[in-house]
Amino acid sequence: MKISGRNKLEATVKEIVKGDVMAKVVMDFKGTELVAAITADAVADLNLAPGDKVTALVKATEMMVIK
Amino acid sequence: MKISGRNKLEATVKEIVKGDVMAKVVMDFKGTELVAAITADAVADLNLAPGDKVTALVKATEMMVIK
Amino acid sequence: MKISGRNKLEATVKEIVKGDVMAKVVMDFKGTELVAAITADAVADLNLAPGDKVTALVKATEMMVIK
Amino acid sequence: MKISGRNKLEATVKEIVKGDVMAKVVMDFKGTELVAAITADAVADLNLAPGDKVTALVKATEMMVIK
Amino acid sequence: MKISGRNKLEATVKEIVKGDVMAKVVMDFKGTELVAAITADAVADLNLAPGDKVTALVKATEMMVIK
Amino acid sequence: MKISGRNKLEATVKEIVKGDVMAKVVMDFKGTELVAAITADAVADLNLAPGDKVTALVKATEMMVIK
Repeated sequence: MKISGRNKLEATVKEIVKGDVMAKVVMDFKGTELVAAITADAVADLNLAPGDKVTALVKATEMMVIK
Repeated sequence: MKISGRNKLEATVKEIVKGDVMAKVVMDFKGTELVAAITADAVADLNLAPGDKVTALVKATEMMVIK
Repeated sequence: MKISGRNKLEATVKEIVKGDVMAKVVMDFKGTELVAAITADAVADLNLAPGDKVTALVKATEMMVIK
Repeated sequence: MKISGRNKLEATVKEIVKGDVMAKVVMDFKGTELVAAITADAVADLNLAPGDKVTALVKATEMMVIK
Repeated sequence: MKISGRNKLEATVKEIVKGDVMAKVVMDFKGTELVAAITADAVADLNLAPGDKVTALVKATEMMVIK
Repeated sequence: MKISGRNKLEATVKEIVKGDVMAKVVMDFKGTELVAAITADAVADLNLAPGDKVTALVKATEMMVIK
């Protein structure tokens, strides 16, 4: 199975904050912190917990460049 | 100056392909390839070229998690 | 493997137009046309072709509602 | 009036969960569940309720393909 | 008809560049330039042309803040 | 420092509602209301408050056109 989304970062979950609708998932990628705002339902569906090995996925059209 | 976008990845530009409207910017981030699809105008405006030190910016709501 | 993205539509590829950077993928989902704009690289990477059975993926934060 | 967004899915609202800032709108689209995360303000503005006939709108650049 | 997207900017089309898959629509909004990257199909479907009075639509989750 | 994101609207913060994970930032741009849904963490990080002069940032691929 392949996904068209071009950016796949293998990270480790550090912290999860579940809100009423959305949840914050903080991850570590080689010393850089990543933060994803996904639905609280998705956290439950994936059974996400600190320490999990995950892949952060970002579509190329969602990434900006600063110089 | 601070940006609300939570994900800031310090990367190096490896390749740029300018199309008629959009452009592909391929970057290296700690050994992982990143791809941003931005406008060709933005590539010109930032004067982007291979070797440039840049920051890839992603809003937390645009990042998914795969487990 | 599970993806946090909440919207997964099982569709069939009808047409692909590869541009210089981006590509258009037209799909059929039970009689409704879906259109995804992904990178031309992703079309090549997934070896997408008309007739393919695919899943269209949309993050919940990217879906609007009209009433 | 026409909208540039290419994906328009005629759906029925099944459930709404209003949080402090965001709300989850669960819809049925031809037997497939859709989930939109929109602002709680938008739910109030559209006076959304279960049973409503709505259109889920997704921009082509926000749709990925999995094969 | 109401759309959940919170940002609706009444603008005037200044320039359109149609590429192979995507198109650039440059607009004027109260003296500030707006640029939308939409599909070339959408430009044809809306019959967009310079001088058109349009509304630029942005979902709240797609807007960042810089301070 | 330049950002590839093409839409930059100089606005004034009118109201902030901090939720558990997400926050709503209401801004004024020359009489038009803008609403950004960003993480509550970002509000704290930028020390956002009503009256602040800010720039609302939107990537060109995230803007739709209605005609």
